[in-house]
Amino acid sequence: MSAQSFHPPVRTLMGPGPSDVNPRILEAMSRPTIGHLDPAFVGMMEEVKGLLQYAFQTKNELTLPVSAPGSAGMETCFVNLVERGDKVIVCRNGVFGMRMIENVERCGGEAIVVDDDWGTPVDPNKLEDALKANPDAKVVAFVHAETSTGVQSDAKTLVEIAHKHDCLTIVDAVTSLGGSELRVDDWNIDAIYSGTQKCLSCTPGISPVSFSQMAVEKIKNRQQKVQSWFLDLNLVMGYWGGGAKRAYHHTAPINALYALHESLVILQNEGLENAWARHQRNHLALKAGLESMGIEFVVEEAYRLPQLNNVRIPGGVDDAEVRSRLLNEFNLEIGAGLGDFAGKVWRIGLMGYASNPKNVLTCLSALEAVGLEAKGSSVVEAQRIYAAA
Amino acid sequence: MSAQSFHPPVRTLMGPGPSDVNPRILEAMSRPTIGHLDPAFVGMMEEVKGLLQYAFQTKNELTLPVSAPGSAGMETCFVNLVERGDKVIVCRNGVFGMRMIENVERCGGEAIVVDDDWGTPVDPNKLEDALKANPDAKVVAFVHAETSTGVQSDAKTLVEIAHKHDCLTIVDAVTSLGGSELRVDDWNIDAIYSGTQKCLSCTPGISPVSFSQMAVEKIKNRQQKVQSWFLDLNLVMGYWGGGAKRAYHHTAPINALYALHESLVILQNEGLENAWARHQRNHLALKAGLESMGIEFVVEEAYRLPQLNNVRIPGGVDDAEVRSRLLNEFNLEIGAGLGDFAGKVWRIGLMGYASNPKNVLTCLSALEAVGLEAKGSSVVEAQRIYAAA
Repeated sequence: MSAQSFHPPVRTLMGPGPSDVNPRILEAMSRPTIGHLDPAFVGMMEEVKGLLQYAFQTKNELTLPVSAPGSAGMETCFVNLVERGDKVIVCRNGVFGMRMIENVERCGGEAIVVDDDWGTPVDPNKLEDALKANPDAKVVAFVHAETSTGVQSDAKTLVEIAHKHDCLTIVDAVTSLGGSELRVDDWNIDAIYSGTQKCLSCTPGISPVSFSQMAVEKIKNRQQKVQSWFLDLNLVMGYWGGGAKRAYHHTAPINALYALHESLVILQNEGLENAWARHQRNHLALKAGLESMGIEFVVEEAYRLPQLNNVRIPGGVDDAEVRSRLLNEFNLEIGAGLGDFAGKVWRIGLMGYASNPKNVLTCLSALEAVGLEAKGSSVVEAQRIYAAA
Repeated sequence: MSAQSFHPPVRTLMGPGPSDVNPRILEAMSRPTIGHLDPAFVGMMEEVKGLLQYAFQTKNELTLPVSAPGSAGMETCFVNLVERGDKVIVCRNGVFGMRMIENVERCGGEAIVVDDDWGTPVDPNKLEDALKANPDAKVVAFVHAETSTGVQSDAKTLVEIAHKHDCLTIVDAVTSLGGSELRVDDWNIDAIYSGTQKCLSCTPGISPVSFSQMAVEKIKNRQQKVQSWFLDLNLVMGYWGGGAKRAYHHTAPINALYALHESLVILQNEGLENAWARHQRNHLALKAGLESMGIEFVVEEAYRLPQLNNVRIPGGVDDAEVRSRLLNEFNLEIGAGLGDFAGKVWRIGLMGYASNPKNVLTCLSALEAVGLEAKGSSVVEAQRIYAAA
């Protein structure tokens, strides 16, 4: 074979992530690489930590970016907080809850599963019942914003219940961080992980995590070594928490961290609550347009994620054909359904930089162009929302 | 806090990695992000696989980049090939052999350690003795190119011995890939991992790995599930090996893979054996210059890595002061000693794009400028080698 340089097409990314990356972030990523122990880099790491604390709304000392994608952030939480034999309550209402169960079992823990239907939030009463039935449970894990279904659960209430029963909490915030309300300290979350490629609209590959003091105590007092050397926070802390005297653990992904830093500076400059409001505004505009096409949301209004619009594919519409035409004719990517939802729903992301009026109109007009009929004009319906805002 | 965009200083990276990144690779990394299931991306992934097969000199089907740094590549090999209770012979002659022992133990395996002094290669006779004493051993693991000491071991012979005793082999090629001779198929290596930030002179964060058919059989026939969900090759294969029908596992680090692709295109265009010869040539020039300053190599000539020059810090020279002056006055990074070698040696990398005459002269002249005296001129000595080549 003889391969040439790869020049990707320029897409509009409105799937479940990666989302459109701000060109400022792409430019930051291409800045000159420096050493992972360079004083200039160490200074930047400190800023990344502070900026992540802001994004997570936490003062947690142990707040850092794991050098691998969100799935590794999930695994970081489980391998550090679960020991062999531990009972863990896992709330499952989508693909990522299922993955949490896999994680518990691979750590040698016992997963007690609390099931809710796909597209509905975790039911706090079911969690309470499970905790009463399992007084020896040590950890409760749930997904704040289910990327497979577009539903958000009431993290604050779920954590309160878990704490009442002396359990630590592990929370998946891959899709919520930067896109909708998330307050790690106010809600007393113990361990949380996210991804860079959703509402931070950074390139994929890094997973921000944060751990409360209670979680840190548990990690420091483990009976067994963490089964992953790469993800062992006792070791990672020596590098990220070492101040000027950092111990080498692994080589940090320098340029990916430049990109994360830039994305967090952008978020800081916009302001977290402004970003949440922007996601909500664009969601409402998209919703107005989609509804004019008779397209329905999977999730009840109160639990919808503004950044990930899961909608039912109208009857008679060919899922694969529509997505393929959007991609080929308009360079527009929307997401397919995952797991039980495959072929039944679309996942239309409005995440981070991609959450803007231009993308809303692009998506609506392209859907009309490939044959989804609206009553009147979907873009006019969307524009009404912007005008009223 | 209020953080600003981060603009790194422009360094010359002559440590143990990251090494200088070719600007072509930085530019590739900043190309527009596309989806991880986009047909255009899937096509690029196929090319990355083919290019990695070339770099590793293998036809192994299971050849792919792990979405995390070299340490995770190491862990990928161990968690997939070692089951609880397995006996693994680990050859230890530096920091990374020690890390292999950690990996074996965290997989629930038993590590039988074959020790050699830091700075010397693995002794094949000691390995043979260990295998005779442990006929139930299942795996032999060793480091081909020890980044902590600058020594290379005879991978071909060590693998032969391991196979004679029915063991699979795990080989660390983090520092050798692209810099010195490495032939996965000819040498019959079963599992190998590397990093992007050394002789591929790409940004750090990705770990190329390759597994032989025998290794794949072992992985498919495991009694226990792989303890890491993120690194479970049975799952990763569904994405990287799925052809057009790829199963979602985790979100690939899109832009980091653009960068890897570009670095491998550059390697393909230069030609692997030309790249090896270039590393050797620049090593000899650096060596001539260093020797004119009375600086001695740690490793015996036959076992030296051309891409990582470990040299003794001359008596009376202040390690930290010299490195700090090189960095601050000349933007030049060289590596400190690691582990037992801290304060005693420097690690001067000539890796990938950084292995060039300009860097050799920069390093020699900067060392002279901060006070290391040469007999005559070190750069003239280096130039003699280039002129003779």
